[in-house]
Amino acid sequence: MLTAKVVDNIWSTRKTDLLMGRKLMLLEVIGGGSNEGERLVAVDDVGAGVGERVLVALGSSARRMVGDDMIPTDAAIVGIIDEDCEF
Amino acid sequence: MLTAKVVDNIWSTRKTDLLMGRKLMLLEVIGGGSNEGERLVAVDDVGAGVGERVLVALGSSARRMVGDDMIPTDAAIVGIIDEDCEF
Amino acid sequence: MLTAKVVDNIWSTRKTDLLMGRKLMLLEVIGGGSNEGERLVAVDDVGAGVGERVLVALGSSARRMVGDDMIPTDAAIVGIIDEDCEF
Amino acid sequence: MLTAKVVDNIWSTRKTDLLMGRKLMLLEVIGGGSNEGERLVAVDDVGAGVGERVLVALGSSARRMVGDDMIPTDAAIVGIIDEDCEF
Amino acid sequence: MLTAKVVDNIWSTRKTDLLMGRKLMLLEVIGGGSNEGERLVAVDDVGAGVGERVLVALGSSARRMVGDDMIPTDAAIVGIIDEDCEF
Repeated sequence: MLTAKVVDNIWSTRKTDLLMGRKLMLLEVIGGGSNEGERLVAVDDVGAGVGERVLVALGSSARRMVGDDMIPTDAAIVGIIDEDCEF
Repeated sequence: MLTAKVVDNIWSTRKTDLLMGRKLMLLEVIGGGSNEGERLVAVDDVGAGVGERVLVALGSSARRMVGDDMIPTDAAIVGIIDEDCEF
Repeated sequence: MLTAKVVDNIWSTRKTDLLMGRKLMLLEVIGGGSNEGERLVAVDDVGAGVGERVLVALGSSARRMVGDDMIPTDAAIVGIIDEDCEF
Repeated sequence: MLTAKVVDNIWSTRKTDLLMGRKLMLLEVIGGGSNEGERLVAVDDVGAGVGERVLVALGSSARRMVGDDMIPTDAAIVGIIDEDCEF
Repeated sequence: MLTAKVVDNIWSTRKTDLLMGRKLMLLEVIGGGSNEGERLVAVDDVGAGVGERVLVALGSSARRMVGDDMIPTDAAIVGIIDEDCEF
């Protein structure tokens, strides 16, 4: 998984029915690695807020998180990193 | 998903029958992250226009979007980002 | 899909039986994006020539292109970009 | 697989039930290649300690490592590199 | 597939039983592209030697190469590039 910070909500009115009702969040990769700063959009079923640090699963594993293998998402938040977890 | 801007149509007369009739669009990654500027081609079943900002699913999730797991695409537009959505 | 230019044939006499008889081409990513210049090898079932611009599907989608899910390829040419298609 | 060094534990109290009880480790890519320094989080079923060098499988192969295809992880430690293995 | 040069063997005594008996090789991406120099570890069922140039399949396609979809590898050598193949 990637470690990322939640930047903002992403709003998309015209989208596939398969993603209707899904909460989409813009994330930025954190962690001090050379991939820091990359951005992506993930489905959030965990209830993360803007500014929180999260774990993100990519690829087919993201579909395991949303509980339906027919959902066309390649990124999903799987957990919120504890506030007192330093890294 | 990646956030991207639609750059142009891509025309390919000699292609696999599996992609016949599919609308192919050249996209450029946006969003202010360090991956900004990467380019890719995606199938568009949503009806995006040149200049619009879109969400793109990659890998096997792209095949979920096109509704047929035998289609050899690794990228598909899943939604158009609202014009008033700032990020 | 990536946009790429065909650089050359790749010859591999000692390879898995699963790839015997397959045409393998060295490709270089084009398109003006920040990923330009990356190189990869793809199976070509479309009949692309050296110097032509092609569309390449990656990952499990490449196996959809070669028509056999047991073939161990992660890249396949899915179409040749029209000569008069500017981008 | 990637070669990586174990940087630290990652603690996430609020996470999907599917990852409950799993040991999550922050890793940093090593090996002298140009991808050195990238960071990611992986499930550890091998028992790696902080500072040890490990092999990491990504994508759907990570789910093979955790023994349950429904677990939403895209990275898993598959082995610990021997201390006297120089590279 | 990536083109890579075999750098060395990788030894891992403490690893998943699923990889026991597998030959693991450290590879470095070659080919003159911008991804040159990235390093990864792959299963070798082809019999490549240190210094040889090889083709590497990534992701789920690597599991096709090792002939068992339950093996947690995301990289496998699929062929050795002929010595007189220039690129």
